[in-house]
Amino acid sequence: MSAQSAANRRILVLHGPNLNLLGIREPGVYGSTTLDGINTALAALARELGVELKTVQSNSEGALVDAIQQALGECQGILINPAAYTHTSVAIRDAVAATALPTVEVHLSNIHAREAFRAHSYLAPVAVGQICGFGPESYFLGLRALVSVLEK
Amino acid sequence: MSAQSAANRRILVLHGPNLNLLGIREPGVYGSTTLDGINTALAALARELGVELKTVQSNSEGALVDAIQQALGECQGILINPAAYTHTSVAIRDAVAATALPTVEVHLSNIHAREAFRAHSYLAPVAVGQICGFGPESYFLGLRALVSVLEK
Amino acid sequence: MSAQSAANRRILVLHGPNLNLLGIREPGVYGSTTLDGINTALAALARELGVELKTVQSNSEGALVDAIQQALGECQGILINPAAYTHTSVAIRDAVAATALPTVEVHLSNIHAREAFRAHSYLAPVAVGQICGFGPESYFLGLRALVSVLEK
Amino acid sequence: MSAQSAANRRILVLHGPNLNLLGIREPGVYGSTTLDGINTALAALARELGVELKTVQSNSEGALVDAIQQALGECQGILINPAAYTHTSVAIRDAVAATALPTVEVHLSNIHAREAFRAHSYLAPVAVGQICGFGPESYFLGLRALVSVLEK
Amino acid sequence: MSAQSAANRRILVLHGPNLNLLGIREPGVYGSTTLDGINTALAALARELGVELKTVQSNSEGALVDAIQQALGECQGILINPAAYTHTSVAIRDAVAATALPTVEVHLSNIHAREAFRAHSYLAPVAVGQICGFGPESYFLGLRALVSVLEK
Amino acid sequence: MSAQSAANRRILVLHGPNLNLLGIREPGVYGSTTLDGINTALAALARELGVELKTVQSNSEGALVDAIQQALGECQGILINPAAYTHTSVAIRDAVAATALPTVEVHLSNIHAREAFRAHSYLAPVAVGQICGFGPESYFLGLRALVSVLEK
Amino acid sequence: MSAQSAANRRILVLHGPNLNLLGIREPGVYGSTTLDGINTALAALARELGVELKTVQSNSEGALVDAIQQALGECQGILINPAAYTHTSVAIRDAVAATALPTVEVHLSNIHAREAFRAHSYLAPVAVGQICGFGPESYFLGLRALVSVLEK
Amino acid sequence: MSAQSAANRRILVLHGPNLNLLGIREPGVYGSTTLDGINTALAALARELGVELKTVQSNSEGALVDAIQQALGECQGILINPAAYTHTSVAIRDAVAATALPTVEVHLSNIHAREAFRAHSYLAPVAVGQICGFGPESYFLGLRALVSVLEK
Amino acid sequence: MSAQSAANRRILVLHGPNLNLLGIREPGVYGSTTLDGINTALAALARELGVELKTVQSNSEGALVDAIQQALGECQGILINPAAYTHTSVAIRDAVAATALPTVEVHLSNIHAREAFRAHSYLAPVAVGQICGFGPESYFLGLRALVSVLEK
Amino acid sequence: MSAQSAANRRILVLHGPNLNLLGIREPGVYGSTTLDGINTALAALARELGVELKTVQSNSEGALVDAIQQALGECQGILINPAAYTHTSVAIRDAVAATALPTVEVHLSNIHAREAFRAHSYLAPVAVGQICGFGPESYFLGLRALVSVLEK
Amino acid sequence: MSAQSAANRRILVLHGPNLNLLGIREPGVYGSTTLDGINTALAALARELGVELKTVQSNSEGALVDAIQQALGECQGILINPAAYTHTSVAIRDAVAATALPTVEVHLSNIHAREAFRAHSYLAPVAVGQICGFGPESYFLGLRALVSVLEK
Amino acid sequence: MSAQSAANRRILVLHGPNLNLLGIREPGVYGSTTLDGINTALAALARELGVELKTVQSNSEGALVDAIQQALGECQGILINPAAYTHTSVAIRDAVAATALPTVEVHLSNIHAREAFRAHSYLAPVAVGQICGFGPESYFLGLRALVSVLEK
Repeated sequence: MSAQSAANRRILVLHGPNLNLLGIREPGVYGSTTLDGINTALAALARELGVELKTVQSNSEGALVDAIQQALGECQGILINPAAYTHTSVAIRDAVAATALPTVEVHLSNIHAREAFRAHSYLAPVAVGQICGFGPESYFLGLRALVSVLEK
Repeated sequence: MSAQSAANRRILVLHGPNLNLLGIREPGVYGSTTLDGINTALAALARELGVELKTVQSNSEGALVDAIQQALGECQGILINPAAYTHTSVAIRDAVAATALPTVEVHLSNIHAREAFRAHSYLAPVAVGQICGFGPESYFLGLRALVSVLEK
Repeated sequence: MSAQSAANRRILVLHGPNLNLLGIREPGVYGSTTLDGINTALAALARELGVELKTVQSNSEGALVDAIQQALGECQGILINPAAYTHTSVAIRDAVAATALPTVEVHLSNIHAREAFRAHSYLAPVAVGQICGFGPESYFLGLRALVSVLEK
Repeated sequence: MSAQSAANRRILVLHGPNLNLLGIREPGVYGSTTLDGINTALAALARELGVELKTVQSNSEGALVDAIQQALGECQGILINPAAYTHTSVAIRDAVAATALPTVEVHLSNIHAREAFRAHSYLAPVAVGQICGFGPESYFLGLRALVSVLEK
Repeated sequence: MSAQSAANRRILVLHGPNLNLLGIREPGVYGSTTLDGINTALAALARELGVELKTVQSNSEGALVDAIQQALGECQGILINPAAYTHTSVAIRDAVAATALPTVEVHLSNIHAREAFRAHSYLAPVAVGQICGFGPESYFLGLRALVSVLEK
Repeated sequence: MSAQSAANRRILVLHGPNLNLLGIREPGVYGSTTLDGINTALAALARELGVELKTVQSNSEGALVDAIQQALGECQGILINPAAYTHTSVAIRDAVAATALPTVEVHLSNIHAREAFRAHSYLAPVAVGQICGFGPESYFLGLRALVSVLEK
Repeated sequence: MSAQSAANRRILVLHGPNLNLLGIREPGVYGSTTLDGINTALAALARELGVELKTVQSNSEGALVDAIQQALGECQGILINPAAYTHTSVAIRDAVAATALPTVEVHLSNIHAREAFRAHSYLAPVAVGQICGFGPESYFLGLRALVSVLEK
Repeated sequence: MSAQSAANRRILVLHGPNLNLLGIREPGVYGSTTLDGINTALAALARELGVELKTVQSNSEGALVDAIQQALGECQGILINPAAYTHTSVAIRDAVAATALPTVEVHLSNIHAREAFRAHSYLAPVAVGQICGFGPESYFLGLRALVSVLEK
Repeated sequence: MSAQSAANRRILVLHGPNLNLLGIREPGVYGSTTLDGINTALAALARELGVELKTVQSNSEGALVDAIQQALGECQGILINPAAYTHTSVAIRDAVAATALPTVEVHLSNIHAREAFRAHSYLAPVAVGQICGFGPESYFLGLRALVSVLEK
Repeated sequence: MSAQSAANRRILVLHGPNLNLLGIREPGVYGSTTLDGINTALAALARELGVELKTVQSNSEGALVDAIQQALGECQGILINPAAYTHTSVAIRDAVAATALPTVEVHLSNIHAREAFRAHSYLAPVAVGQICGFGPESYFLGLRALVSVLEK
Repeated sequence: MSAQSAANRRILVLHGPNLNLLGIREPGVYGSTTLDGINTALAALARELGVELKTVQSNSEGALVDAIQQALGECQGILINPAAYTHTSVAIRDAVAATALPTVEVHLSNIHAREAFRAHSYLAPVAVGQICGFGPESYFLGLRALVSVLEK
Repeated sequence: MSAQSAANRRILVLHGPNLNLLGIREPGVYGSTTLDGINTALAALARELGVELKTVQSNSEGALVDAIQQALGECQGILINPAAYTHTSVAIRDAVAATALPTVEVHLSNIHAREAFRAHSYLAPVAVGQICGFGPESYFLGLRALVSVLEK
């Protein structure tokens, strides 16, 4: 990937509800890294991969839908951890499908090793792929995955 | 219906999440008309039917609930396309039931010919009726239906 | 729509089982209009919309399938209230799919506000769309919807 | 019950599909009595109870619906063995509900001791009651039950 | 049936939980007849049919099982209204199956027209048959049914 | 098989609803052969196998039940494509079980590769066997299968 | 509430199976208070609220039904912890519905945070309300709730 | 509890969607008290119990999540009526679990006596306990319960 | 195991409903041995294994719960055939969990080769283990298993 | 079909687990023909139809997958009786889908007349068609079906 | 049992997948005994009971099926711990049914106290019986059970 | 990570059934890269990350279980694409749980966008995490994820 192609590649990084509490929220489940920590590390990796990031966190389903819509024309892909909305939001799924931007879904925890309702994702069928279980590393892998998709 | 009775008839038109993307969102499913196009045509039909419209679009479930509540005293009926919230929102259902305003539910696409989860509507049991599958025409039929209900 | 185009547009109106009892059948649920009343009003609306109607009512699933098949070549669309067969007839669904005539499904009552088994329609996935809950008005809206589909 | 009251009491006896084969159909399950045998015995019991019977057997769902509708004004109650249509016909249920005639549902075999799908009856919730498992005796008990209901 | 054969025919009549409240219990559902009223009428019918009755009511599942077991050798058939235990007791089912006495299950109300869980009977598959929906008449029909079975 | 044994072997060929539309009905799913074409080819194969055919097509469940009943004494086996009634008709199943004639169920399309509801057959458990997916060839294989069963 | 009105207010306190083991039974789940401890504290609160208590504990479903029936005429309300019978007893539900006495259902543990089958209560739909998760405090809150209901 | 300990005890009272309509919303189900009425009474009880309240109502899931998060450090417990979000919001559940503040869930109506979907609460498994069915009294009992939990 | 350790080892043997009918109850399923026969053989084996038995049979769920509770302090383990209550009793499960005595569940018949509802045991998850299908031998194996557990 | 075209047509015949026991395995269900008998008869029919066969039996899912893969380039179609793996193997389904060779699924017994789990086939949706219930004849019909497919 | 009868009694002991890891595999669940330890103890018990053992362990479903088939003629019974294949293998079930050798199913852990999917066994309905939860003792009890069955 | 630590880090790469066909198998779903191509690229990435790989492909569930067991002591982690066995193999799950080696599950396709049965993974709950949908890139991300886990 040349520096030029990177120049016009921008990725929306979306953090869903309660992720702003990372580091204090159920550390037994989610670890002690904060969301700022993840964003900083993601930014570093983005520079390494030659992409730009726009980062949004919201506890509101509607605000997440708004952010996805605003990515149209502005970003070329979406890296999203929908958190609780993974399991309940058709609106986010529809927003992703509507924008038709390549989207990678990530989760800090292994959603298959928790309550049964967490194994189902409304978003996954319209995403490119899903990565879960690796803590903050899920985001880094997700960014690599998305860049790799955009390069094709 | 006399002109007078129309004078004090006002209808809230509510568009749910992602409908602001109409025309660019999955045109294979939803067609190429924009939301503005629909609103303009609805306004024309409203004049023909002797009613006034108040139109709101939001991607936020809470904002849609707010709008429904504000219709109390201000409007005599609701024409709503809850989009994705059709399948996930008990709050919108409760708002409609609470206001007790006659409500008509419309959908652009045929929700029975898509993913299984789209066939279920939390709202429908408290609505007067449901119309789906006719593209923008669903709205026009819905407005006629609602006016007809209000006339009784 | 020009008068000419109407000249060769004919619509089959199909009334399913027990609809001949309309007006005496559970008036609390279905209202007091008779089927003749509906047919007369439909005929008036048809003239207004420039289409011709052929009307059939039957309590027999097979006779309804026969009628749908006979519409081939004879009619350009179908307006159907399958009543009880909505929920149990794959044969009517297959007949509609086989003829490939645009079909609009209507219901007098709100099928989502009654017994759970009435919310499922075998026909809906192969129909253009579905309208329910508006009493006789469901038919009038359905006819408008069908004509609008045929005009496209 | 006086003879006079009987004079104007008439009951429709409806036999569903395949019951015309009684006596030759799976005698292990249904016994060796023929439908004629049952009708003769029912007629005798009817005389004893002071009611008149009108008897219809059909293999067609639609014809059974027709018969139920024709009972309106002509009969005061319905004794029905819907046989296979017990489990698949919403149309017969709707016909019974529409006529609002007291209806007693009977079955020769114990529907709870056979295939799982036979335990569910679409008709039962709108019937007065259900009697099953006693062979031809189910009909005789059903007639007594119906007369007793009519006497109230 | 000769008087002699009746001499040695004895039937256990079993009333399940809360039936002792009949007449005061939800009269809208169960009517105003008391259990004593039913027992008296049953006794009269038993005399007419040439059988003897032994009557037990209990609110205890175990006591009902005991009573069924004690019928062995003592009675030739069982007429039972298991009431609430219809839907929850495998023990009563097993007791009936173990004694192998012909058993008729009766219900005052139409169990198919109430809460969904009331439509399922653990007992029915091992009973001869089931009668429901006719109020106290269900018992009288059930006694006739049982005597008819015993006569075969 | 000797010519004599063929002399008294007659097979009922039953075509269910909408099969009369074959060749025009969803050719993508069912191919372009007509029902007449199939019947002609079946007749040729029947001559080769030394059996006689009686062929019936109907869109009515009741008429199909009638035809099955009339096969009693007249035919020695049934070759049936119940089409839509495969999935909804207990009456046809009961008719086949009642006549106790060896019955082979065939389908043009692969019912396991279509909508989920098409994978279930009420008839199959009482048929000798089932053949699906080979277009008109399903009938020819079915006739061979039935003749082979009759020869045992 | 005046002292007089209290004079004729009596409440049945019902403890279901295994509650007599409280304090030794799975203290991790239920805490270390004994049933006597709870009864003593309840009695004190009853005096404060101006009501009289009658307290029964039983491991037998039938005995609990008996106790509920005996409350008729004797008590004006029921405070019940049905314990295991919450999830399996239709008889207790029917007894409560039959007496029509206002009934409050309480649970020591949070039934929604345990095995899935404990989240369902047969009793709850016929009770006034349900309180769970507060240990012995659930009883005290339940008594307050019941007195508040009786005061209305 | 001493006055000192009360000094630093603060409770977040959270009212979910449509509760602002209390008193006008389906009075048959929810009674005629307004939310202001409840808040005033809660404030009085809080003074009596020696705790301070912070009260928030919102129709937005995201705003409710925000409020729960802001309680961290600011409040020692949460009293919440999640209303419609009880049944659909994993985000509120996750927020409560993340803050790890003792939370009491209350409902005005008996959620077990309404539509089936209202019996399930996403929140309950992470709450201390649940109280439902007592109208405004549910809040007062809930506040007592929460204070009692905080005192331990 | 020394004689001394046996001296203070006592085992409660619990036989559930209808087991008192063993030998006459459905011999095709349960064989011809009587309960006395089993108890005698168990007693002999107990002597061989150096343990004492206390044996109880009851048809009443409550009495079985009572017996389990009385084992506290008196017995060191429980050998139980809950029979029908296996599938319906949470109370027996709770009693076993509450006493925390090692419990072995046995069944005469193979519960997996009978009606589907018999494959589920409420008790099994809190028992040490389960043995089924070996007739009376199931008890003997169960006693050996329990003694082996107690010896650890 | 000319002799030449047969020259290069080769069919893999695959027998799944336990089919090597044919003739001794549950003869009541599967008949007394051995697998060798079937293979010999299949070979004769293959000669008649002008095709060559390669025959493999294995009890191992992996070996069956290997055999399917080896058919690539070597065979033009597959005739398979997956036996027990019909109901449990996604690997065999994927192998068939991957090779994209026309595949016909056959079963000796009528899988719809046995345990419920045998009615579902993982393979069927990717096969051309399925034939079941005719004993060894199922294979012969299957071979004819496959040759007919290859000829198209 | 005489020494002679033992001379010709041979039992196949089958250990399913991952049991070769016993002692290192999840010791918290399965204990620290190795498979060799169990085999040695089983051999000693076999000598005591006068039977010979043939022992096989495999991780392959096909190899286990092979071993069961080879037991035909060679062994008189099977003692099997199918481990993971308990829940997924129809092939092992069919092999056991085909050989018709008495088979006892054992499990080290209590399969009812683990993940829900472990409670279902495909094998159990065709086995004589099932023993689970006693660690290595499950095998010893199983061997006793099997010998007892063979002695009948 | 230092070179030393890499020296003793070895990873088992496991490819499940049909993956040897990659590049020819349903290229529309899986792309055109071959398994050799993936292995070569993985090897290059392994060198970059300082780990050694051992690579195994098998179509046999048992062989995959064997390979997982052999990793004990030999490898420090497992990268596995279980392919079809994802959805059907408890044995592979148990093998992974038994070895307790950190395991990363990868899939080429998006398993959530295909047939419903592919969304469920028996393995995922015992894996560290799951990555799906990125084609060969899924493996590369998985290797990075695993190395990252091993480094912690």
